[in-house]
Amino acid sequence: MTQTKGYAAQSATAPLTEFEFERRALNPDDVSIDILFCGVCHSDIHQVRNEWGGAMYPMVPGHEIVGRVSAVGSNVQKFKVGDLAGVGCLVDSCRTCSSCEEGLEQYCEVHSVGTYNSVEMDKKTPTYGGYSKHIVTTQDFVLKVSEKLDLARVAPLLCAGITTYSPLKQWNIKKGDRVAIVGLGGLGHMGVKFAAAMGAEVTVISTSANKEADAKSLGAHRFIVSKDKSQMKASSNYFDFILNTVSAPIDLNPYLALLRLDGTMVLVGVPPEAPQIQVFNLIGKRRRLAGSLIGGLPETQEMLDYCAEHNIMSDIEIIKMEQINEAYERMLKGDVHYRFVIDLATI
Amino acid sequence: MTQTKGYAAQSATAPLTEFEFERRALNPDDVSIDILFCGVCHSDIHQVRNEWGGAMYPMVPGHEIVGRVSAVGSNVQKFKVGDLAGVGCLVDSCRTCSSCEEGLEQYCEVHSVGTYNSVEMDKKTPTYGGYSKHIVTTQDFVLKVSEKLDLARVAPLLCAGITTYSPLKQWNIKKGDRVAIVGLGGLGHMGVKFAAAMGAEVTVISTSANKEADAKSLGAHRFIVSKDKSQMKASSNYFDFILNTVSAPIDLNPYLALLRLDGTMVLVGVPPEAPQIQVFNLIGKRRRLAGSLIGGLPETQEMLDYCAEHNIMSDIEIIKMEQINEAYERMLKGDVHYRFVIDLATI
Repeated sequence: MTQTKGYAAQSATAPLTEFEFERRALNPDDVSIDILFCGVCHSDIHQVRNEWGGAMYPMVPGHEIVGRVSAVGSNVQKFKVGDLAGVGCLVDSCRTCSSCEEGLEQYCEVHSVGTYNSVEMDKKTPTYGGYSKHIVTTQDFVLKVSEKLDLARVAPLLCAGITTYSPLKQWNIKKGDRVAIVGLGGLGHMGVKFAAAMGAEVTVISTSANKEADAKSLGAHRFIVSKDKSQMKASSNYFDFILNTVSAPIDLNPYLALLRLDGTMVLVGVPPEAPQIQVFNLIGKRRRLAGSLIGGLPETQEMLDYCAEHNIMSDIEIIKMEQINEAYERMLKGDVHYRFVIDLATI
Repeated sequence: MTQTKGYAAQSATAPLTEFEFERRALNPDDVSIDILFCGVCHSDIHQVRNEWGGAMYPMVPGHEIVGRVSAVGSNVQKFKVGDLAGVGCLVDSCRTCSSCEEGLEQYCEVHSVGTYNSVEMDKKTPTYGGYSKHIVTTQDFVLKVSEKLDLARVAPLLCAGITTYSPLKQWNIKKGDRVAIVGLGGLGHMGVKFAAAMGAEVTVISTSANKEADAKSLGAHRFIVSKDKSQMKASSNYFDFILNTVSAPIDLNPYLALLRLDGTMVLVGVPPEAPQIQVFNLIGKRRRLAGSLIGGLPETQEMLDYCAEHNIMSDIEIIKMEQINEAYERMLKGDVHYRFVIDLATI
């Protein structure tokens, strides 16, 4: 076992504070990573505050992890000491079910081990995330990270990046497709970058008129203020694909009405209340509503390689570890462009 | 103009009664059909009683029409006098929009002309349906009907048939797929026949335990009582595809939970209240919820040809025209196996 240091919540109502804990001794397939940067995902707040239920304390959040390999187990071929490495939302799964065999570990039929607030495959050992100095993870759940990119800006790719890349690939977004990204936050801003890189005509749909310039600088070609009914109506039956990143309460029907015949809206955010769907909105244009959950390990690697090739990174604000509680408050106000990333050198 | 006789509702609360009206004189592209049989669709009741709004009276319902050609216009090549012919839910559309050009006239971006309770492309001339002795329709919206099948049992194919055939084809149902049909009524019983003919393993899901024998005689391999939570749970993550034919109030979430990874549920019925969707039910298995509306003219012809080839027909109860009001009451009680068909010789 190795002693390490992180920031943890001790309860749903406590601020995050310094926390000493142990990482497991290296197994033959394990990689030990000195964490350099960890992105701050909105789901960290939900889990720290037990808004999804089932929170386990102390909780060390963080699943957008990049760092350098500091040690490897005896079976590890894929990494050597000094390599850059990334860890995303998952650190293990059953590896034998049909989903795992397809490289879709996020849909493991037995148990997907979350990077924090989860338990290992033994169903009892808690997992602790990336708000910490180092992590020990089995090599099959560690990603290769290019030396070409700005490492702090790579961290959010491990969740925000793959969550938006995966549905765009799954639904075969290509040159000339009309794609809308709903919500311009941590997820949405990555969605814009990926959809634009794939050659789509990208429209950002946001409640905030003042995000237009930002949207366009990120790569969007069009901008719609969702509260403006005439703007929404003017894009009826327009889009081939809508990626909806909103996890606030939302009426999905006005967005469904923007899809053309056989168009698809994919949800990657979970609103607190189950939205109501006007069925004729689906039937009348043979529209589709679907969901997508992060991405599997092979696709996450593909996404990181795609980012290195296309020079795609998250737009971030680097914070010190001690600023995390303040960062959460700012995120709740939407005051972040577009992801906080913790510099773990500051712990 | 030709005088004809039918049954019409004069208001949302009046029973259907005999009604004399005129059909247009034959245009060069028109086909005049002596109607032999007309199926009774549940949507006839909704429209007669103005439950969907916008009802126009007098209303002659009926869009599951089969008969024999009695006259053709000077341009008509496709039909000759004496041919069998069918008319479904549509009698015209703009014919130039991208949907019409793809043969998806039901999604016409300008105006789809319904067979009744609608107006022609002139936006003013009302249309009258198949509860009548004859109909005059442009040849492009008239289907060819095989002499091989029992004509009364063919009539319901024009709506119930195409409504269930189209989504099964659209989603590429094939040998070995696990398909559930929710609801065993006019639509559902056709869904079972088609899915079985396409080689799927077919499960009927019904609120009524006493429909099991019927379901199996129609071609189903399995049967689930939807009210039995343990039966439902035993089929979690099981189905590739669910065709949901229910238009009564329904909680869709227990059905979504039956879909496997990347599975799709298609809705062809419109429940009175917009159903709530638990978003994680979509995201957690990358499931899809979609809609489908009848079918275009080319696919309707394909379906009729498929039925002739595979000897597929609706299970029906033939009624006299004067029994229509009583038939509606029985339909509202679910007391029909599985479609009433009016014998127009009885008017």
